[in-house]
Amino acid sequence: MSKTPIVDIFNSKFALGSQVTVKGWIRTRRDSKAGISFLNIYDGSCFDPIQAVVPAELENYTSDVLNLSAGCSVAVTGELVESPGKGQQFELQATKVEVHGFVQDPDTYPMSAKRHSIEYMREHAHLRPRTNMFGAVTRVRNCLSHAIHNFFYERGFNWISTPIITGSDCEGAGEMFQVSTLDLENLPRDEQGKIDYKKDFFGKETFLTVSGQLNAETYACALSNVYTFGPTFRAENSNTTRHLAEFWMVEPEIAFADLSDAAQLAEDMLKYVFNAVLTERADDMAFFAERVDKEAITRLQNMVSSEFVRMDYTDAIDILQKCDKTFEYPVEWGVDLQSEHERYLAEEHVGAPIILQNYPKDIKAFYMKLNEDGKTVAAMDVLAPGIGEIIGGSQREEDLAALDKRLEEMGLDKEDYSWYRDLRKYGTVPHAGFGLGFERLVSYVTGVQNIRDVIAFPRAPGTAEF
Amino acid sequence: MSKTPIVDIFNSKFALGSQVTVKGWIRTRRDSKAGISFLNIYDGSCFDPIQAVVPAELENYTSDVLNLSAGCSVAVTGELVESPGKGQQFELQATKVEVHGFVQDPDTYPMSAKRHSIEYMREHAHLRPRTNMFGAVTRVRNCLSHAIHNFFYERGFNWISTPIITGSDCEGAGEMFQVSTLDLENLPRDEQGKIDYKKDFFGKETFLTVSGQLNAETYACALSNVYTFGPTFRAENSNTTRHLAEFWMVEPEIAFADLSDAAQLAEDMLKYVFNAVLTERADDMAFFAERVDKEAITRLQNMVSSEFVRMDYTDAIDILQKCDKTFEYPVEWGVDLQSEHERYLAEEHVGAPIILQNYPKDIKAFYMKLNEDGKTVAAMDVLAPGIGEIIGGSQREEDLAALDKRLEEMGLDKEDYSWYRDLRKYGTVPHAGFGLGFERLVSYVTGVQNIRDVIAFPRAPGTAEF
Repeated sequence: MSKTPIVDIFNSKFALGSQVTVKGWIRTRRDSKAGISFLNIYDGSCFDPIQAVVPAELENYTSDVLNLSAGCSVAVTGELVESPGKGQQFELQATKVEVHGFVQDPDTYPMSAKRHSIEYMREHAHLRPRTNMFGAVTRVRNCLSHAIHNFFYERGFNWISTPIITGSDCEGAGEMFQVSTLDLENLPRDEQGKIDYKKDFFGKETFLTVSGQLNAETYACALSNVYTFGPTFRAENSNTTRHLAEFWMVEPEIAFADLSDAAQLAEDMLKYVFNAVLTERADDMAFFAERVDKEAITRLQNMVSSEFVRMDYTDAIDILQKCDKTFEYPVEWGVDLQSEHERYLAEEHVGAPIILQNYPKDIKAFYMKLNEDGKTVAAMDVLAPGIGEIIGGSQREEDLAALDKRLEEMGLDKEDYSWYRDLRKYGTVPHAGFGLGFERLVSYVTGVQNIRDVIAFPRAPGTAEF
Repeated sequence: MSKTPIVDIFNSKFALGSQVTVKGWIRTRRDSKAGISFLNIYDGSCFDPIQAVVPAELENYTSDVLNLSAGCSVAVTGELVESPGKGQQFELQATKVEVHGFVQDPDTYPMSAKRHSIEYMREHAHLRPRTNMFGAVTRVRNCLSHAIHNFFYERGFNWISTPIITGSDCEGAGEMFQVSTLDLENLPRDEQGKIDYKKDFFGKETFLTVSGQLNAETYACALSNVYTFGPTFRAENSNTTRHLAEFWMVEPEIAFADLSDAAQLAEDMLKYVFNAVLTERADDMAFFAERVDKEAITRLQNMVSSEFVRMDYTDAIDILQKCDKTFEYPVEWGVDLQSEHERYLAEEHVGAPIILQNYPKDIKAFYMKLNEDGKTVAAMDVLAPGIGEIIGGSQREEDLAALDKRLEEMGLDKEDYSWYRDLRKYGTVPHAGFGLGFERLVSYVTGVQNIRDVIAFPRAPGTAEF
């Protein structure tokens, strides 16, 4: 007995009158006094469940059908008919209901049909994909991921899996997790009494990566256009709705390119993936707009139709200083902008996405290209209305002497960056790239506020369940 | 000045006589006595470099062009003309050569034009993508990755990012790396003097995942068809050409499905991705067939056109015992098959890919579904001619009582698997899945023998460079 995905029924791949078998889980059951039961069945293939109309004549009606509750798994065979009610166009006139699995003790089933708090669902992360909300998040997340891969594939980028375990603690983007196979209760010691990392798995101290960028640069300086899409880690004790200890990052890197090329790539990519979601996941987006954030759809539509405004950091400071708004954090040239500043610029001053460029060098990383003014670097942030920074990037310093000067200024050891410096010794090229936190993108698209609710099993301080 | 990818020229996207600018790196330079230089330029967009013909009349001919060597980066503008020589159809009649970066001390450039050993190149993993070989590996790897995502997307699967850091050491698939933020030189101790993991980042001991399967099952039991594609880890001291400490794995999981469905999915997926490589990367595959493994293309063509033979483990043992071949490892019912056995079956006995099914339960994992015979489980391996096992999978035990019995037999604690057992308590469904080691796939496709040469920056015992 083969299986028909519910989405194929709603997409009219079957004629009325067809015999189909749907396999999925019960969302709700309702019994009429006339001796008919209505089952709402979902299978994850789309947002909407399909209704099966089950007559009392079925031989297992009393023994099975009347015992069905939310979460039970079934295979329902029947004829596809027009639905007389509002809402769905089609329903199933069931001729057979086979139960694969009942729910043990339905009263205590953690995902029973009543509404649960989002915190409660987070504690049941192994069952929450059964809900409307997390089913929708999963499909939108999948759509975004696939659109990102498609966008880069169509443009001739190569996906690079940069290493997760890294021997260098010099990526400079944040606190790191240590990775080891040493027996911590019996650490080997060297002659000085220090831990002997020569005995560790890799023969030295190793950590989880915080960014694939430096590694990706080596491939961009050979194959022109590459990107990473993989997990990255921050061992920061940040218990906020915006931070995860483990999250996925997208990092394109392009050769023979400057800051303006990277900015254009970021704008094109965001528009491409937002378009994909609006087209391919209209059902899930309608749910988010109705139940989570009424701006969910219009926000994306605006992003797609807006021209992203380019603005220099220096001009932004001027605007913020001259506006009549009072900010919690004072503004002066040289400070890092806060979310309140970013959102004022994007939402109130411009009313469109902004690509803010050319930041003071002292608040940015060593690898960013120094501008001719000697005090700013070719860095950019994409600021989106409703969230603030969603992408950060830069042109990289491709001049060896200038890079060495920056390393020295920041007290970094040239030896630690020897392979990175090689890229500047051998056929150096202007190149640029950016990073996009994938979960922040999913959060932005769905309107789901807490980033822990847009990844299957979130990792945060004190949280590594499942 | 915009840039034309070389692949667009070879794909005839520009008419003869067009002005184009190519940006890339020098592979070779040859000077004729007539005062003309021939530059071979690659940009990573395809296997073949393009030839630029540079006349001595260019103002920087002596100062720049005659100093170009392998690895220098250039932008060459010129007219697209038919190539009079053999090989390429098009070449560039250069009117401008701009040098972005020379190679410092060309005599010591690690990727100079002479041939290097593959071990030497591994030691220069940041520069090896500049070679023909690693450029081709990277493009084929990218093509395979994209084909996998496409295959699943077209079939309505959702990509799930299962966690990398896991709090459970009960995945049972191999030795694990520990992840910690504790100061190893000053470990906190509890009252018994043991390490106090409550003070660690996650409040307990954590490890790097060895498989996303158990987590993926939670999503399959809610959304029907899902897959993972992410890094997994083995802290095994295996210094072989087939093992990495960090590798990428693809793990689909399908609900309302049995072993036969998983076997069909595996066959369909392999054929789909092999077809994609043969179609989309014909240039790189021609290189592998010529320089690395002359069977590289025919092997894939055979896989695509073969029907994969289903065979029971018990029958395979019978065949191996009755054949007149002498094996290093003796064969009897109950043993795990060795590579020599798998290759005999696929290459000599059947001459086609085999899906070997229903293995003895004692050599398989706790979660595999017990068959009615009580002594085998619904496990499968896909054996490919030329490599042996390429995919391993199984139907999962969906019956709670049977699962609990297996946990007990194997001395595993039910409490450790409470969330996994919940899937069997609440609307359980038959489900199945498999795992594909992505680097082994790339190795199989390209014929590149050592798995460390098909991932950008390999991690193995004693090796975590870059």
